[in-house]
Amino acid sequence: MAAEQSPASRRDFLRSVGVAGGAGVLYSAMGALGLAPVPDARADEYRAPQRSDFALTGRGGKKVLVLGGGIAGLATAYELGKAGYDCRILEAKNRPGGRNWTVRGGTKLTDLDGRTQTATFTEGQYMNAGPARLPQSHVTLEYCRELGVELQVFTNQNANAYIHHESGAALAGRPMRWRTAKADVYGYVSELLAKATDQGALDARLTAQDKERLITFLQSFGAIKGKADGYAYTGTDRRGYSVEPGAAFEDGTVLGPVPSLSDVIASGVGQRFAFELGYDQAMLMFQPVGGMDAIPYALAKAIGQNRITYGAKALEVKDLPDGAEITYEDAGGRTRTQRADFVVAAIPPMVMARLKHNLGTDITAALKYAVPTPVGKIGLEYRSRWWETDEHIYGGITPTDTDLATIWYPSYGYQGRRGTLIGYYNFGANAVAYSDLPHTQRLARALSRGVKIHGDKYRTELDHSFSVAWHRTPHIEAGWVGWPSQTGPEYQLLNQPAGHVYFAGDWLSHVIAWQHGAFTSARKVVTDIHERVMAA
Amino acid sequence: MAAEQSPASRRDFLRSVGVAGGAGVLYSAMGALGLAPVPDARADEYRAPQRSDFALTGRGGKKVLVLGGGIAGLATAYELGKAGYDCRILEAKNRPGGRNWTVRGGTKLTDLDGRTQTATFTEGQYMNAGPARLPQSHVTLEYCRELGVELQVFTNQNANAYIHHESGAALAGRPMRWRTAKADVYGYVSELLAKATDQGALDARLTAQDKERLITFLQSFGAIKGKADGYAYTGTDRRGYSVEPGAAFEDGTVLGPVPSLSDVIASGVGQRFAFELGYDQAMLMFQPVGGMDAIPYALAKAIGQNRITYGAKALEVKDLPDGAEITYEDAGGRTRTQRADFVVAAIPPMVMARLKHNLGTDITAALKYAVPTPVGKIGLEYRSRWWETDEHIYGGITPTDTDLATIWYPSYGYQGRRGTLIGYYNFGANAVAYSDLPHTQRLARALSRGVKIHGDKYRTELDHSFSVAWHRTPHIEAGWVGWPSQTGPEYQLLNQPAGHVYFAGDWLSHVIAWQHGAFTSARKVVTDIHERVMAA
Repeated sequence: MAAEQSPASRRDFLRSVGVAGGAGVLYSAMGALGLAPVPDARADEYRAPQRSDFALTGRGGKKVLVLGGGIAGLATAYELGKAGYDCRILEAKNRPGGRNWTVRGGTKLTDLDGRTQTATFTEGQYMNAGPARLPQSHVTLEYCRELGVELQVFTNQNANAYIHHESGAALAGRPMRWRTAKADVYGYVSELLAKATDQGALDARLTAQDKERLITFLQSFGAIKGKADGYAYTGTDRRGYSVEPGAAFEDGTVLGPVPSLSDVIASGVGQRFAFELGYDQAMLMFQPVGGMDAIPYALAKAIGQNRITYGAKALEVKDLPDGAEITYEDAGGRTRTQRADFVVAAIPPMVMARLKHNLGTDITAALKYAVPTPVGKIGLEYRSRWWETDEHIYGGITPTDTDLATIWYPSYGYQGRRGTLIGYYNFGANAVAYSDLPHTQRLARALSRGVKIHGDKYRTELDHSFSVAWHRTPHIEAGWVGWPSQTGPEYQLLNQPAGHVYFAGDWLSHVIAWQHGAFTSARKVVTDIHERVMAA
Repeated sequence: MAAEQSPASRRDFLRSVGVAGGAGVLYSAMGALGLAPVPDARADEYRAPQRSDFALTGRGGKKVLVLGGGIAGLATAYELGKAGYDCRILEAKNRPGGRNWTVRGGTKLTDLDGRTQTATFTEGQYMNAGPARLPQSHVTLEYCRELGVELQVFTNQNANAYIHHESGAALAGRPMRWRTAKADVYGYVSELLAKATDQGALDARLTAQDKERLITFLQSFGAIKGKADGYAYTGTDRRGYSVEPGAAFEDGTVLGPVPSLSDVIASGVGQRFAFELGYDQAMLMFQPVGGMDAIPYALAKAIGQNRITYGAKALEVKDLPDGAEITYEDAGGRTRTQRADFVVAAIPPMVMARLKHNLGTDITAALKYAVPTPVGKIGLEYRSRWWETDEHIYGGITPTDTDLATIWYPSYGYQGRRGTLIGYYNFGANAVAYSDLPHTQRLARALSRGVKIHGDKYRTELDHSFSVAWHRTPHIEAGWVGWPSQTGPEYQLLNQPAGHVYFAGDWLSHVIAWQHGAFTSARKVVTDIHERVMAA
């Protein structure tokens, strides 16, 4: 049984495949040198169940009931379906995708507290309320390829977007372009390190040749002056221009004056740079054309719409001696029970914990061990794309130290008539502060922060808005969950089947809050079930 | 006459507009603090001629003959056409755009030496042989908006692309992902500067508070250890993974081991980082959907196809007492002469210099003063998008220290069946080395370099190819030109009219080799002509 296969042995196997494989040889060699990843080690690991697996054994696809039509549930049914398993999905909402949710004109949301919003976005305008970006390494991209979901660049970084800090000494309260922040921080860092290196302060760590090469690098990296000028950083056209270079004698006016070293350090803008170095956040990133929900809709279509029951609210999950069953209330209010060989529970752990079940109190306790994270997002549709026309910002993100956290400029519809920003995307206490308010007050608060960055047009050009508080959204109840420990008994328990009931979701992965986590968790459960069936 | 207007006064005017304008107030204030550019200072500067300019004066649009249908020539006719000037364009080639040229299946090129290639790219595959990227600040984007040219992101940088140095000590010859290079360089730089700062080596430059804040920044920027561990850089998951994190207990295996400080410095990878900080090269950047030539074709359509004569090879330009004329050989081989109130010569200076004219020997000498730059590019169409499927590289650029200079992964058609790389994009001696060879040998040379980075598939998956050597291309003869001086008498002379003959082109700007230079040069000449007509 696959669930008894130790993670260590699985990883060992994986590595041996990586080393033995054709193209793998080159990359493993590179990997051994610490230079390049061994790509598709993960792809080697997973092998989808196939109809031919059953051909000579007399076995057949079993019946599997999936609770929850989010990415993990859909991927489970999709992958098992490849081998002919008879999968059915019960989904409480009236759409597939779970948190993968694209809000368009007409989309309705009733919060847990009963407050209802109906989106009035113009046709063609949308917001991805949940996941919005896909890293190149994530298996999500492989599903997009397999399902024919067309991709475009998601603009996670933009040199023309701002960093806006309301604290930060002399520079506080003044939005600074990323390009300006980088020019100044890299400039001063290079000046300081070149000085220290030249003065011999690092001779214990650097050879004479290292020193020479390092200073050459710093002069390029920081655009600093030479030794005669103390390696001083005094500005560079990387900061931007106040008058753009152009025809004839217009050689441009570089943005100035350059703030002092002390002011730049105190501004804290440099603290933003680590974001784009993050493994999951480094550009390039991608999004499906037309909305992130192209992924769940493509999965649902591949599974077969007749296999998905919407509006099915689970009441009870029961493990049986030779299978499992789910009792639920259907869209018409009738109580029904469906039975299968296996059940895969692909719903959030805190929601599952409240369900009636016979899986034991340890399971309930383990499910409750996960800590839900409040997350909020607001979409702001504008009559004009003033960020493009007036500020030359075509996509990207402005981080702030205010409670809205970040403003996102749209990665689609460039130069169109209208556009939809994300006006806040925040977590924890900030998300709670906004979600406690009704939508109109959330909006007012977001706008009051935004005008400090973008001026009055941030209010006057607004046309439509829609906000989501994931922790107040029925059947979902969090942006994501965190685990106090992913090595303890609670997490271990949920990664094994409880009789004929399996658990799946990004929350059972090391890539929480990414669809990659949901997909890989589904693949693991699919593999476990298939190996169990084949071994029976 | 506008040509007599000094650049200084023009710039002063510009600044006063920037300060007086509505939204300008905010930005000027920010600009004065050295934080944000004053956007659209340039846009304020240019005012297109309008029909209403003539309404009360009894004046009318004059006849203008434009020599050359590249971006500068097209923009001149387009802008003057807005006020009703009767513009005609004479273009030697059979298409508009000049160096803005998108090569598709069927595209033909005969070099100056008589060697002919016909592109066999599959439908939907193309290469932008000339300009390929648009910065957000360039006026080119405003023309795309005005003309309805749809944009998508041009992927000028990608953390998953490589840096490939064949020199560089211990790490030579092994492609390194950008993300890995940044993690290691930023890590070691942070370690070194934190050590030096902590040890007091920079106390002359840093206050106690500066030091504390700087070290906090460096810990985030370099992902380095704390003071107790000597601020050591020992690696980070920013480098990438050899086993990707995933479901259950798979927390991933970070790529390792980390090369030594000395090896990282000697590798020279850090020298590549300045590129993406450049004002013109920083992401985000854009390209027209379907090919860069969407811009000239949209301009040609707006001007009116009947106003453009293709296949017209200029023989002579003559200034007359009350106008100017061009004698040319038409597509049928007949010699013709057209006369106009003004001529705008929008062809490369070294081509213009060889033309018969009566503008004086100073003009000829000035035109010859510009130095042509050899530039080459090759497009490689592959049967599969192995860079995406095998290496998780969706767009971006791999710089090398070999003679191919850079490899570009396509910014369109993600996850499609086929894709077209740029296999070299090089200048100067490297471009000459390739262009001296016939196409098949250029290709063989490019492939021999590429296999060292990407392995055998770089050769085995190839299907079609096409190369351009701009310096060997008729009527163009260079990738771009450089000026020994842009303040000397030669450059000054060409920025004034020679009687009724004006010069336009990116080569008469401070943004050479960018369409922005051509557009702004055209705007300047348009303004000069219109002011002359209005003042007459």
